[in-house]
Amino acid sequence: MLDEELLVRTLLNHELDLFREEYFNLHPYDRAQFYLRLDPELRERIYEFLSPEEMADIFENLDADDDEYEPILTQMNPQYAADMLSNMYTDDAVDVLNELNKDQVASYLTIMNKTSAQEIKDLLHYEEYTAGSIMTTEFVSIPEHSTVRSAMAILRNKAPSAETIYYTFVINEEQKLSGVVSLRDIITADEDSLIKEIMSDRVVSVSVGQDQEEVARTMKDYDFLALPVVDFQDHLLGIITVDDIMDVLEEEASDDYSKLAGISDMDSRDRTPFGAAKKRLPWLIALLFLGMLTANLIGRFEATLEQVAILAVFIPLIAGMAGNTGTQALAVAIRSIATGDIEDESKWRLILREAGTGLITGTTCGIIVIGIVYVWKSSLFLGLLVGVSILASLIVATIAGSLVPLIMHRFNIDPAVASGPFITTINDIFSILIYFGIATTFMSYLV
Amino acid sequence: MLDEELLVRTLLNHELDLFREEYFNLHPYDRAQFYLRLDPELRERIYEFLSPEEMADIFENLDADDDEYEPILTQMNPQYAADMLSNMYTDDAVDVLNELNKDQVASYLTIMNKTSAQEIKDLLHYEEYTAGSIMTTEFVSIPEHSTVRSAMAILRNKAPSAETIYYTFVINEEQKLSGVVSLRDIITADEDSLIKEIMSDRVVSVSVGQDQEEVARTMKDYDFLALPVVDFQDHLLGIITVDDIMDVLEEEASDDYSKLAGISDMDSRDRTPFGAAKKRLPWLIALLFLGMLTANLIGRFEATLEQVAILAVFIPLIAGMAGNTGTQALAVAIRSIATGDIEDESKWRLILREAGTGLITGTTCGIIVIGIVYVWKSSLFLGLLVGVSILASLIVATIAGSLVPLIMHRFNIDPAVASGPFITTINDIFSILIYFGIATTFMSYLV
Repeated sequence: MLDEELLVRTLLNHELDLFREEYFNLHPYDRAQFYLRLDPELRERIYEFLSPEEMADIFENLDADDDEYEPILTQMNPQYAADMLSNMYTDDAVDVLNELNKDQVASYLTIMNKTSAQEIKDLLHYEEYTAGSIMTTEFVSIPEHSTVRSAMAILRNKAPSAETIYYTFVINEEQKLSGVVSLRDIITADEDSLIKEIMSDRVVSVSVGQDQEEVARTMKDYDFLALPVVDFQDHLLGIITVDDIMDVLEEEASDDYSKLAGISDMDSRDRTPFGAAKKRLPWLIALLFLGMLTANLIGRFEATLEQVAILAVFIPLIAGMAGNTGTQALAVAIRSIATGDIEDESKWRLILREAGTGLITGTTCGIIVIGIVYVWKSSLFLGLLVGVSILASLIVATIAGSLVPLIMHRFNIDPAVASGPFITTINDIFSILIYFGIATTFMSYLV
Repeated sequence: MLDEELLVRTLLNHELDLFREEYFNLHPYDRAQFYLRLDPELRERIYEFLSPEEMADIFENLDADDDEYEPILTQMNPQYAADMLSNMYTDDAVDVLNELNKDQVASYLTIMNKTSAQEIKDLLHYEEYTAGSIMTTEFVSIPEHSTVRSAMAILRNKAPSAETIYYTFVINEEQKLSGVVSLRDIITADEDSLIKEIMSDRVVSVSVGQDQEEVARTMKDYDFLALPVVDFQDHLLGIITVDDIMDVLEEEASDDYSKLAGISDMDSRDRTPFGAAKKRLPWLIALLFLGMLTANLIGRFEATLEQVAILAVFIPLIAGMAGNTGTQALAVAIRSIATGDIEDESKWRLILREAGTGLITGTTCGIIVIGIVYVWKSSLFLGLLVGVSILASLIVATIAGSLVPLIMHRFNIDPAVASGPFITTINDIFSILIYFGIATTFMSYLV
């Protein structure tokens, strides 16, 4: 779809008209992708070829990593960057500015068009990851007592600048949100009817401080294309459109996924091993110390080990099974919390269910192990020891896997922080205590 | 928002009018949620109170688990169920029918309205998880040479039955897709201009056999509200709307997440421990056998262990670190494949980068370990043994974590099947081989 070579050649040869002709044949997303892949020197050429308004279009579609914005913006002429920012949809401009430091933001806001600067400042107040931080203020609202004809005129007029005109929110005399009307309803309605008569007053809104993940869930469940954002008195402050919500869904899913794997930030454009190592080392070092604790624990059973070296053979099996079961329970608990299912059923029921699951899986795996070890090592006691340890470890692991995220959720800590590797290591410790505890107690049967 | 008690009371008392009044005050999604939470006996009452058309609305919003549809449908009167299915949007009806067995599907199709049955049959052909399986055939297409006025008349006319009228796809004389025009463009255009003049011919389409995950990515990247689905000759077959895509994004994310945790299907409504155990046991038993392989491997070093029991102390540490690093590398590789980033860079570069990351993290963790073990056990050799084993294990683990999913992707196997626990266990084996290999070779320094 993209003839990149031709575009690059026109850039290098300063063929302005040819470049523009080819470039504007592309879809805005493809324009943004082409721009993002360019070397910094070639990007500088683009700024000579495109107006700040045209660049704003590209930036609205730019899917860059958070830390890519700063170098890109500082490379631009400051006035050009400021003009571009004022031409972007406010929510997108705020997304970009959130990646810069405060001094940079302040200097752009100073040289920017005053109206845009004010709109941006209003949005910058809202905390990241809230409805306020992702909403846009470029929306159309219509008073209840307008006619369909006048509403249509307003929509025609606002169509070029509003983010969406397909859902229009209706406000009453007190400027409070009172309903919603879709363009579908407007074009099929009699032109003389009042908006109040055709609007739906069952309007679902989100409050400005609400978490973006909850907003995304509401939008997905109700199949909305836009959601109104209100303050605590129901005044309409902005709207959130479905395209922003798709990004939120992707971001939150990727975030949960990374944490389950024990990576602080999933960033596949991170092309150097140093960048990747920096993001993974904090987890690994923390786990290393936890692992040392495990080593220390086993060290306390050195006397037992010296007498019965074969015990060591089953350490990875038991620890591994406990770790895997714990991760399963953890994943279920985190998803239940994320999708809101947990509010429907009591937390204790979830934990009890997990313990029950641990009992069933533990019994099954325990029996299999007893059989295998008995056949392999011809020792029923060793089989029983390993089997019973697996049973007990699996029950403890399912309880730990569900209890830890629930406790974190209770204390308003993001439960996804209790990553898979963390729960795995905790369960390693429990399972080894169980295994060596039983072995040491019944030592006489082993030697 | 929901007064469930009142609704249930009206159902129990057969208060038809009161129930309907309250019920239709709810948003369709809330109606569906209420219905889903009802006991089977109360659901039967609802069928007496609501027409099949009204029930169709509820089913379009029903977020039920896959295995819930069958019992719900068999409980309904077959003719009522068939009428309901013919009143649903074709794509939603197909989603429901896909959960039933072939006999059931055939019998519903026989007693259903003929036109709907034909539309459904056409869609049932498409394989699950393809664009064809999620598209709808209720769309509006307009010939290139229509005027804006006549297009508007068509849209007004189709508005009640089409899934969306906000994007209209334009076809040429050969019935091939030639452009797209938004309702925004139509309402702001001069009524006498031709659609051909105002449409965009840079229309992005997906082919009917394309994977739904790719479709979702295209929709998310380009911020579309609807995407046209075409056959290999560019004939317009259907459209996919953004609300279906949000479900796909959620489904795929949840799927990847479950697999990373080693659960075949994330299902939090699974309220019995037996149901949960059934879904987790296949993974656990497979891992148990892999774990036995690890035990067998360590068993081969029993002679070494009998001489130097302290070696056992560090088994969980080394295996754990390798497992965690492998999971990190795995998660990055799977996400890179899922987001399509991997096509941009060569696979070998990803693996090399991961190996580099393993070298850096391994060196860092190795040095820390040498220090701790030296201080704790006053043995430089033991420290070196554990440290070097961690370094080597981490390099192997990052390579295995990225290589395995890439190979699976190459052979068109979903790389997410290479779950976290699977990679963890594989890396347990490698790390133990490395550790005992080195220990046995340099035995003389240990005893």
